[in-house]
Amino acid sequence: MTTSATNTDQINTEQLRELAAQLRVDSIRSSTSAGSGHPTSSLSAADLLAVLMSRHLRYDWDEPENPANDHLIFSKGHASPLIYSVFKAAGQITEEELVEGYRRFGSRLQGHPTPVLPWVDVATGSLGQGLPDGVGVALAGKYLDKLPYRVWVVCGDSELAEGSIWEAVDKASYYDLDNLVAIVDVNRLGQRGATELGWDVDAYARRFEAFGARVITIDGHDLDAIDAALTDAENPDGRPTVILARTVKGKGVPQVEDSPDWHGKPLPSDIADAAIESLGGVRNDVVTGPRPGVTTPSPAPLATTVELPSYEPGQEMATRKAYGAALTAVGRADPKVVALDAEVSNSTGTGDFVKAIPERYFEMFISEAQLIGSATGLSVRGYKPFVSTFAAFLTRAFDFIRMGAISQADLRIAGSHAGVEIGADGPSQMALEDLAMMRAVEGSTVLYPSDATSTVALVARMAATDGISYLRTTRGGYPVLYDSDETFQIGGSKVLRSGEQDQVTLVGAGVTVHQAIAAADRLAEQGIGATVIDAYSVKPIDAGTLERAVRRTNGRLVIAEDHHPQGGLGEAVLSGLATFGIRDLDVAHLAVRGIPGSGTSAELLGWAGIDADGIAKAAKRLIG
Amino acid sequence: MTTSATNTDQINTEQLRELAAQLRVDSIRSSTSAGSGHPTSSLSAADLLAVLMSRHLRYDWDEPENPANDHLIFSKGHASPLIYSVFKAAGQITEEELVEGYRRFGSRLQGHPTPVLPWVDVATGSLGQGLPDGVGVALAGKYLDKLPYRVWVVCGDSELAEGSIWEAVDKASYYDLDNLVAIVDVNRLGQRGATELGWDVDAYARRFEAFGARVITIDGHDLDAIDAALTDAENPDGRPTVILARTVKGKGVPQVEDSPDWHGKPLPSDIADAAIESLGGVRNDVVTGPRPGVTTPSPAPLATTVELPSYEPGQEMATRKAYGAALTAVGRADPKVVALDAEVSNSTGTGDFVKAIPERYFEMFISEAQLIGSATGLSVRGYKPFVSTFAAFLTRAFDFIRMGAISQADLRIAGSHAGVEIGADGPSQMALEDLAMMRAVEGSTVLYPSDATSTVALVARMAATDGISYLRTTRGGYPVLYDSDETFQIGGSKVLRSGEQDQVTLVGAGVTVHQAIAAADRLAEQGIGATVIDAYSVKPIDAGTLERAVRRTNGRLVIAEDHHPQGGLGEAVLSGLATFGIRDLDVAHLAVRGIPGSGTSAELLGWAGIDADGIAKAAKRLIG
Repeated sequence: MTTSATNTDQINTEQLRELAAQLRVDSIRSSTSAGSGHPTSSLSAADLLAVLMSRHLRYDWDEPENPANDHLIFSKGHASPLIYSVFKAAGQITEEELVEGYRRFGSRLQGHPTPVLPWVDVATGSLGQGLPDGVGVALAGKYLDKLPYRVWVVCGDSELAEGSIWEAVDKASYYDLDNLVAIVDVNRLGQRGATELGWDVDAYARRFEAFGARVITIDGHDLDAIDAALTDAENPDGRPTVILARTVKGKGVPQVEDSPDWHGKPLPSDIADAAIESLGGVRNDVVTGPRPGVTTPSPAPLATTVELPSYEPGQEMATRKAYGAALTAVGRADPKVVALDAEVSNSTGTGDFVKAIPERYFEMFISEAQLIGSATGLSVRGYKPFVSTFAAFLTRAFDFIRMGAISQADLRIAGSHAGVEIGADGPSQMALEDLAMMRAVEGSTVLYPSDATSTVALVARMAATDGISYLRTTRGGYPVLYDSDETFQIGGSKVLRSGEQDQVTLVGAGVTVHQAIAAADRLAEQGIGATVIDAYSVKPIDAGTLERAVRRTNGRLVIAEDHHPQGGLGEAVLSGLATFGIRDLDVAHLAVRGIPGSGTSAELLGWAGIDADGIAKAAKRLIG
Repeated sequence: MTTSATNTDQINTEQLRELAAQLRVDSIRSSTSAGSGHPTSSLSAADLLAVLMSRHLRYDWDEPENPANDHLIFSKGHASPLIYSVFKAAGQITEEELVEGYRRFGSRLQGHPTPVLPWVDVATGSLGQGLPDGVGVALAGKYLDKLPYRVWVVCGDSELAEGSIWEAVDKASYYDLDNLVAIVDVNRLGQRGATELGWDVDAYARRFEAFGARVITIDGHDLDAIDAALTDAENPDGRPTVILARTVKGKGVPQVEDSPDWHGKPLPSDIADAAIESLGGVRNDVVTGPRPGVTTPSPAPLATTVELPSYEPGQEMATRKAYGAALTAVGRADPKVVALDAEVSNSTGTGDFVKAIPERYFEMFISEAQLIGSATGLSVRGYKPFVSTFAAFLTRAFDFIRMGAISQADLRIAGSHAGVEIGADGPSQMALEDLAMMRAVEGSTVLYPSDATSTVALVARMAATDGISYLRTTRGGYPVLYDSDETFQIGGSKVLRSGEQDQVTLVGAGVTVHQAIAAADRLAEQGIGATVIDAYSVKPIDAGTLERAVRRTNGRLVIAEDHHPQGGLGEAVLSGLATFGIRDLDVAHLAVRGIPGSGTSAELLGWAGIDADGIAKAAKRLIG
């Protein structure tokens, strides 16, 4: 039976039951065929999805890019058999692809959903992320797109233990995201046993209500109750809605219902076959749910030519401040640019944007995971989020950044207060691992400008760069090194000092460029020529320029970075040189070793051995 | 005036007022003298600390290691002027050290407190961590030490936006930690402006109550109310207690009271001097608060000789399973060993420990930040926590691991399901950045065993290693390579194949060791000798063995890792070689580039080019 219902009246309860059964059957078939997957986690939510997709999800399946579409995010990404069964029931994937492709090499139907599929906004599978991402999409809907689409996020109960869920609900409440609906599949069982709260939906309800959500609790297998709840959810009262659906894990297959022993296990063929038969057998019905409203798109404001700030060589300016000025300029020119920060905008430079373009700024307060989740969601809607906080605190959000790469999100991240350079605040505020973290992110771009001019140029480059890009900024002010008409490339570097007789190459980035210049001056006074390279593009690194310089200085190389020795500038340089083959290399890798304390910038840079003195000494030791 | 009160009756309200004024005066003096710091954040909590330290904190200041001591954690670590003023009022630091040392280079009074000070349990300053750490200490107190000490955590209101706070309250409630008291300084102002909820203490109360805490709300400047609340907090009702204290930021200095413009700003000298005078001037009183009860320590059960599991060469065994067996053996032998996991113990191997020694296992559910926070707190009490989850999900807790290093915590972390090897679950579950993350942690040890025997040996090594150590385990089973009497050193490696005529060196770790062995066999069939090295100690790496092998194979080196190219095994090897100077190196660095999908282990290892085929091809290309 094929229905072509285009409004909610036309799919009746009997048809809903059929659809739910089909979703169950397909969840079983796909995972059993694959020999892996999470059927019981899918079975518990089948009734919810049957009602949602057929009566409430306003989605044009043939036009996934339609801006008026609702959004469906499976925060419980391991229930991928179910979401793919939904795609099949929507007529978008074939029976063959679902059953023969699921979890197979080369298939777009991966173990957890990713945006290789056009109907998937964000990759999920690391729990507690789908709802934060959904907050980002909802922010776009309510404040930027100003379109009435709804964001439906299907969550598990086990993932409610993740703090990021509560960051999401808190922000959803603060921002009055009544276009956001979380549907929680409360099946009481996690991976290794019962969840903390089991079926105590009232306990969950109190939490969600306390965090500002409107809560509706239902029997998650009562189709009428589900429908009524989703209908209520579509009547906004200013608050985000959370539907707590009491469900049974494995529902529909009595042998595994409510059992703690079946998480993440495909049903063996015999059990699967019997279950499918008992569910009414294989079906390949296609259901059409409601369509989104027709929108007359407002003419999108066009980007205009950006007027970047410029600085005079010699002028002292902190790169974090240049970031703020550049961000504001880029934001004025491009209406897609959005900024977010986590309670430190008056330190990161983003405060300029907050003042200049408040309607495109979203304060996240002290919630770095939600900071990235919001940006990921905004990116789904084609916005260009620039996020900032102290670089050290970005480590709070590493899992979100990691998943952002899998989500193919375009995130521009600025981490300020890099290294021991920050001084008196001490190690808790010092980023000494961030270059390693951001270099290891798939497809990332990692930039670390030494002065205000290069900062501005690189921010403009980031605005035009897809994927995840990272800019590391410095607390203190340092002299502008470059004229405002200098160009900077992703993958480039600048040779600041160079002579045919140079005996050593000094490589730095950010604050250590200034140290290297001073060291070169000192060495020059002693008749020693030193090449100085500003490796502002840490990834991709300008291996060619480095290789030529090091070859000319007979393999003598000093690398200085305000970062731990692992995974940062030093190892980036070594990896770059290694691509050419290394014939001769004597390298001194100066980095921060040990736990710093408080002090002035100069004292700490000296303590770490990465100041001009340390660099000059290391150079002379190499020269012998 | 010096009091030597040893019970709560002896310090009266007038003396409390004096003490509070002294704490205010000293908070101002220290930060003004340093020219940096957060006086207004300190001023708001001065009354709270005055009452706490003099009437409720049962602490033997001369014996910080007394196991009966209460614990005081400043989750709002930026209020360091206040905590150091408390130490002065307790007679532990001098006026000179406070005023002349605060935030200065070399001083133990750093910008944010760290355990360089004997009365500081954990480093704070990255917000939202002190309470999770406190949960760990409270777990120790209630379930392991079985001592009645109390854990007092002073929080800010702004940091309640961090999801990790709610992970902490949730676990505190789940574990009935009625020995844990959070005192929240609700001064309504964050760094750049008002917090989300301002002074709406009722809103906070509803949240904490919903999460299972007992809530007491007070005027945070009413000394009697504070005292009554702390007295109530000492009467447990089975729940953790949260005291919500409505306060005024900058209280005591009218010019800056409740102003959003003074966060993180020291008072200029003129304002400071006037304020100090108005507060009654400089005082150097010493107050003695209540002492802990006398405990007759139960004789600590002694560690016994560990009986490690052993495996037969050739037997197929997953290293994650060997981890579980080894952990259990180590746990049986050492009563200080404790295990924690985040809802995946039946996957990580820790499930063995759960069954064998349930009284020393703490389930954290899906809360990786709290997983590390709990371990950090347990480490404070001298326990040896081993924590586990999927390696990919450890990225959720990077900021906690980073702070754990600054806290000088001893954490043993096992991350399972490394790399593309996991197969069908796909990229969200694959750890491809974890070696970079863990290598970049200060002082860490990073281990990646290839077989069950080495896993067991390295787990035993970890048990004896301080600081933060990390073990990366693999999902699939692979042949045991080593006899059970082989020894493995941190900083060591194993040369598995070696011949004088070898033309290339192959380096792997974990799963790629098996691939490298197969590649070497294939090359041998073609008359090409290949040295094979198992670099199971990624940090510190066995640079000496690597250097000798590479020199002998004329600089030809293939490194294969199931990890992104940045920051992992490959760069560890390059850094290691660089310490010797490099004369000749042609390296093929095989790693995971691009975003993987689903598939079998073999298909994905092949796709990544890190299987035997890829290694052999790369070797031949080098040989030319």
